[in-house]
Amino acid sequence: MKLSRVGEFGLIDRIKKIVTSDSKNLLLGIGDDAALFRSRPGWITILTTDAMVEGIHFDLTYTPIESLGWKALAINLSDVAAMGGVPQYAVVSLAVPSNWEVEDVELFYRGMKQCGDFYGCMLIGGDTVSSNSGCFISVTVVGEVEDGLAVTRNGAMNEDVLCVTGKLGGSMVGLEVLKSGENKNRFPISVKRFLEPRVKLRESRKLVKEFKITSMIDISDGLSSEILHICQESNLGCLIEEDKIPVAEEVFLWAEKSGKSYSTYALNSGEEYELLFTMPKVEYKKFLSKKSAVAKFDFTVIGEMKPKSEGIKIMRQGSTVPLSPEGWNHFENIEKGRQNYFS
Amino acid sequence: MKLSRVGEFGLIDRIKKIVTSDSKNLLLGIGDDAALFRSRPGWITILTTDAMVEGIHFDLTYTPIESLGWKALAINLSDVAAMGGVPQYAVVSLAVPSNWEVEDVELFYRGMKQCGDFYGCMLIGGDTVSSNSGCFISVTVVGEVEDGLAVTRNGAMNEDVLCVTGKLGGSMVGLEVLKSGENKNRFPISVKRFLEPRVKLRESRKLVKEFKITSMIDISDGLSSEILHICQESNLGCLIEEDKIPVAEEVFLWAEKSGKSYSTYALNSGEEYELLFTMPKVEYKKFLSKKSAVAKFDFTVIGEMKPKSEGIKIMRQGSTVPLSPEGWNHFENIEKGRQNYFS
Repeated sequence: MKLSRVGEFGLIDRIKKIVTSDSKNLLLGIGDDAALFRSRPGWITILTTDAMVEGIHFDLTYTPIESLGWKALAINLSDVAAMGGVPQYAVVSLAVPSNWEVEDVELFYRGMKQCGDFYGCMLIGGDTVSSNSGCFISVTVVGEVEDGLAVTRNGAMNEDVLCVTGKLGGSMVGLEVLKSGENKNRFPISVKRFLEPRVKLRESRKLVKEFKITSMIDISDGLSSEILHICQESNLGCLIEEDKIPVAEEVFLWAEKSGKSYSTYALNSGEEYELLFTMPKVEYKKFLSKKSAVAKFDFTVIGEMKPKSEGIKIMRQGSTVPLSPEGWNHFENIEKGRQNYFS
Repeated sequence: MKLSRVGEFGLIDRIKKIVTSDSKNLLLGIGDDAALFRSRPGWITILTTDAMVEGIHFDLTYTPIESLGWKALAINLSDVAAMGGVPQYAVVSLAVPSNWEVEDVELFYRGMKQCGDFYGCMLIGGDTVSSNSGCFISVTVVGEVEDGLAVTRNGAMNEDVLCVTGKLGGSMVGLEVLKSGENKNRFPISVKRFLEPRVKLRESRKLVKEFKITSMIDISDGLSSEILHICQESNLGCLIEEDKIPVAEEVFLWAEKSGKSYSTYALNSGEEYELLFTMPKVEYKKFLSKKSAVAKFDFTVIGEMKPKSEGIKIMRQGSTVPLSPEGWNHFENIEKGRQNYFS
């Protein structure tokens, strides 16, 4: 159905039906000038926003609109996870291209709603407007974290262990599979990881509540790039062991076809949405000792923080070389004619 | 300077230098995964977001980029004013077209910063990405309002007076002047009103703190359209007197040239960012009696709320006719080939 048939306010009513939910702290949701909610004493508010632009961050020829809705919210939830927090509310600005129909807009909101329900984040407002060029999405998430538990990028200490959740590389494989026209069903985990990323909110909460995490960041630009961020912000160096980086199984399969090394995927794949974090060695020992109790998830130590003077290095086949980040950097990549996240 | 020369992280550093400010409640600003701030007990949090799309909401051939930055924030602040609140923090997603240079991005942030400083709202985060089509902007503002003082659209009561701040029509005149190529200096107030709208935050606070305001909305789509919103949400009708609608002086001048009636401007001009609100008659009498004390601003009674069965009407040249809103409705206007807000 054409958008002009339902009009702006008809569309708002349809969106309301998709996203409305209840919460005792939410006083006013979609439909007024703004949303209203109550904050809790003893908690700090988290605010984060991320944009996605058609042709830069996504390509609708291989991205289902419902997945796009999921992902637009998920990438923001991952930022909340990176702070150690709990997401609460989301608002979205969606600029809809002229070839979208009402049903497409509804699919988008349905995808967002599914992601929000899965992670306990409520969509409480937004602005849906028309675009005469591409699709543009901006999501803002409000969350909270207990006073004293928030983790930033800049608290890593010398000799801390550097750790990562999950196994890396799959998102870049998923994108390459989708672009290549390869049968998606042969790489189902990677494709799903790229299209509808899972975020490590539960894991983040376990970490900040049970251990002393000194710094944390989510892997959106690529492992090597995020390592650089933590080192720069914490004013330290580090030494990574390439062999220790956990690599997703489908990466090995795909690397055989693509001819790239599997560690290229593990180091440079963006949109992984795993957590990269540091903790003192004594905390890591604590984890090992109570592992059976907390190990509803696992993580891997991939290296150690060093003094700044020792640089940011990786041990590869017995020799130590500088780590050169090749993750996504917006304006440089565009200049080079690179499109999407990793191509 | 080309954006690729400074890169994404160089750009973030430059933006930081423009927008950084201090606040005791802000714990973490631009540069990490998210921003962190403390909320106050006894206050409710307000969350609002608004998008602007090049070619739909603005045209860079006659809009200075610095004004665009001002306006992108101002339209969100106006939503906070419509709730009776105080703005605190803003985040922005900016998708930058390939022909913009570093200096253009800086101008945008400078405009936002000026607006934020003027109204006490701090820019604490955002996402600046590249676009291979037009410019997209989405701003989200967090504000607060005392528990019990928030005003929504749906609380108007039968026989309440319907009031509006300021004088209307100027924004539409400003847009028409800019599009016509007419000398801008002949309509300075209207052009300024369109490009860098002032918002009624101070007025809103006076209203909610000193009077019992039953409903409130800001005029972004046009007076007639906003009247419809209040009536629909409050399940009431109303009777407006056309002669009482305050019209900006330059509207009369421009209407002579354009051949439209001045009331067309007053009723349909969007982006006015005045406040439309209702209050019981007894409250209005209170206002009249203490006018000298509070009248650092004025407002005008333009009509009265009626039972729903009496409809939404306007008294025009002695006869009473239905009020037909012709403000902006996104998808319908686009379908009709209408561009920008009012053309």
